[in-house]
Amino acid sequence: MIFGIFKEELEMRFLIIGGDAAGMSAASRARRNDPSLDITVLERTADVSYSACGMPYNIADPSNPMDALVVRRAEVFREKQGINLLTGHEARTIDPAARRVSGVTEGGQPFTLAYDRLLIATGARALTLDVPGADAPGVMALKSLRDGRAMKAWIETREVRHALILGIGYIGLEMAEAFRARGVAVTMIKPRPGFLPWLEEELADVVQQEVEANQVALRLGPVLHRIEPGGRLTAVFDTMTADADIILPAIGVTPNSEIAAAAGIALGPGRAIAVDRQMRTSAEAVYAAGDCADAYHMVTGERAWVPLALRANRAGWAAADHVCGQPVELPGITGTAVFKVFGLQVARTGLNVEEARRAGFDPVKAVVTSRSRAHAQAGSSPVYVQMVGDGISGRLLGAQMVGREGVAHRINAAATALFARMTVENFSQCDLAYAPPFSPVWDPLLTAANQLKKLL
Amino acid sequence: MIFGIFKEELEMRFLIIGGDAAGMSAASRARRNDPSLDITVLERTADVSYSACGMPYNIADPSNPMDALVVRRAEVFREKQGINLLTGHEARTIDPAARRVSGVTEGGQPFTLAYDRLLIATGARALTLDVPGADAPGVMALKSLRDGRAMKAWIETREVRHALILGIGYIGLEMAEAFRARGVAVTMIKPRPGFLPWLEEELADVVQQEVEANQVALRLGPVLHRIEPGGRLTAVFDTMTADADIILPAIGVTPNSEIAAAAGIALGPGRAIAVDRQMRTSAEAVYAAGDCADAYHMVTGERAWVPLALRANRAGWAAADHVCGQPVELPGITGTAVFKVFGLQVARTGLNVEEARRAGFDPVKAVVTSRSRAHAQAGSSPVYVQMVGDGISGRLLGAQMVGREGVAHRINAAATALFARMTVENFSQCDLAYAPPFSPVWDPLLTAANQLKKLL
Repeated sequence: MIFGIFKEELEMRFLIIGGDAAGMSAASRARRNDPSLDITVLERTADVSYSACGMPYNIADPSNPMDALVVRRAEVFREKQGINLLTGHEARTIDPAARRVSGVTEGGQPFTLAYDRLLIATGARALTLDVPGADAPGVMALKSLRDGRAMKAWIETREVRHALILGIGYIGLEMAEAFRARGVAVTMIKPRPGFLPWLEEELADVVQQEVEANQVALRLGPVLHRIEPGGRLTAVFDTMTADADIILPAIGVTPNSEIAAAAGIALGPGRAIAVDRQMRTSAEAVYAAGDCADAYHMVTGERAWVPLALRANRAGWAAADHVCGQPVELPGITGTAVFKVFGLQVARTGLNVEEARRAGFDPVKAVVTSRSRAHAQAGSSPVYVQMVGDGISGRLLGAQMVGREGVAHRINAAATALFARMTVENFSQCDLAYAPPFSPVWDPLLTAANQLKKLL
Repeated sequence: MIFGIFKEELEMRFLIIGGDAAGMSAASRARRNDPSLDITVLERTADVSYSACGMPYNIADPSNPMDALVVRRAEVFREKQGINLLTGHEARTIDPAARRVSGVTEGGQPFTLAYDRLLIATGARALTLDVPGADAPGVMALKSLRDGRAMKAWIETREVRHALILGIGYIGLEMAEAFRARGVAVTMIKPRPGFLPWLEEELADVVQQEVEANQVALRLGPVLHRIEPGGRLTAVFDTMTADADIILPAIGVTPNSEIAAAAGIALGPGRAIAVDRQMRTSAEAVYAAGDCADAYHMVTGERAWVPLALRANRAGWAAADHVCGQPVELPGITGTAVFKVFGLQVARTGLNVEEARRAGFDPVKAVVTSRSRAHAQAGSSPVYVQMVGDGISGRLLGAQMVGREGVAHRINAAATALFARMTVENFSQCDLAYAPPFSPVWDPLLTAANQLKKLL
């Protein structure tokens, strides 16, 4: 026999703020872990569980509706998983002492919910332009599915001939390709020099040539002063002006951590919510996961904010597991990322030379040009590799790669080596796969490691 | 001032038997290490330094001459590198006590050469059929460049409509594809059941379907009795006969270790020459490298014979380095291999369940079907993964993968994890690359590791 008071204790209330990758991963995982858990998710928009990273590819494709990116619909979470998913609910304040979250619905109704365990999975948002006219119609960031729908509708209902992208990062480059796929002329402008400053210069040059070969105009240096609204928008920079039918600010993202900070929860680098290896914040019974939270970087050993999808999903699971009393230990990230830009694959893992120096290492680098396939094999193309090791310990610190094929997955070997804290010497001895259609006998990563060994 | 006797001591004589991957890698590396070294290579054919693995792709392509596979011509070694490269020289006996090698030239001239350090890099040869008619014209193995030239000439100078391949392995499957590319009908026959018995059954079924979908007839079970020569060859099996214009025995390879065994040098598994981590054989001053030699398997810790090109090149370098007085320690192999068969990539690393059991582990496996790209991304195809872990230690023991894209390089992450002796739990935490055109958020290898964790 279970009395009311015991029943309440058994039905722990797990409240989640945010219904995207981390939040819904946590909700689903918690439900699988514990059928009796009381799980509530507060999502301020109408959309949950969608592939945000897929938006540029969807926008490029007129035949594919934006809602194809929805991985699981809200009703599935509600009806099949018994998750109390409250869309149109924006959380505004957390009271960790009282274990309560308050907010307001889309309809303006205030609400307050009590929790036993809270997960903050509020994600990140696109940085906005701080100039007059930044809110003019046609200035459109791309972060939420709502943003994606709005942008696709804008392209499809107007005569969009010229897109202006402010900033040159993953999303900007993916969107440059998407616009070009739809026949839209593209100009990318950023205020600082260096096309992709985090990428080894020789590799960045290869990417820049590919972007320019696909008729994307690049301007490095102009500082934006204002945007003039109208039938066509006019962006006024210090040294030039540019007309466009759509302007995409892609100048970076920032964590939605204000609600946590206001509750006295500690923030880490980039003002992301600081979490330990169990996804716990500084407040009791409060977890954070996803793009709003930080992680330990396994190469530096320091906290880092690298908001990417795999970590968001993994952290969501980990938070749910810990809430359900399971042992959890997420060692951290190695900063692995890959993107496609026109015919190129661009990948990185670990630290570049500058990051390694800042982290206190003695970075030594090798830059090699290898091939994607064997000697005399048709279809082979160059693979550019940069590899960084530590001159003191011999440890592998990072790798970057650019090429037309075989880059996106090759980087995973280096990522695994970083996770295992391998030396360059050890990594150079790994038994990587060879067959003529896929690789030279010495994989490009091994060629880079062999070169780097000599310099260490 | 250097007197004659000192000069002779300084000019150490490094003799190499075999001028393919391991032998020529060693010769070149030794020259780079030491400009004064006296380096002689004995090669019984006329060909050195060619990409043997590229032969099936070359045979498939009528526009590409077979000699395109030559990586570096003999004259380059002789003239630019000062290597005394003796083609048409077959070594027949080694006298380790006297440090002498004797043999005979193509012209029938006997020779004897003294050495200070000897490298045996005699490679492997195709196993021959032990039936009447095995030497009939049109029964053609594919191992040396000479074999490749002969086979290509046979195809191009006769009306070859039907090829019979005996055995189903990497080379047989690559050649099946090459024959089909040239419009030749193909039948593959092997005596034992199991299409690819080393591959997880679910994965092997996918490969078998792909092979059959490309009009390759498969017969598992028939035992070959004899081959009847003639304008068309007739292969007579216990239960059937098959006519063919060319018959390719692809029933495996065996190390060319007889010369070593006759000199009293110890052999290891598969009768390959046993070497330590410095490529030293049991005889003083005698090294072995390449397909004739064994290696330590880093998962089992035991000696293994896995004749593949990367190890051959690496072992050649290592032998040369050790001869030149440099520290050398090759930890070993993890049995990584990949091949292409029609539209599929097939890859493996480490141990399968049966191999793991034989090595004394308590193997537990997971088999998952994932996707090559993200949710809703165009062009995605299934990726089949099998992963094996040790039920006692939790250690990752091996992985196999089949798919249309992203398999050949993905396997390298698992190969690196095996090298680092990672547990399945650790591997499941690796920060692998994600972008919608290249992967689901959870890479197929991570999905397999997540599943396997639950079973361990």
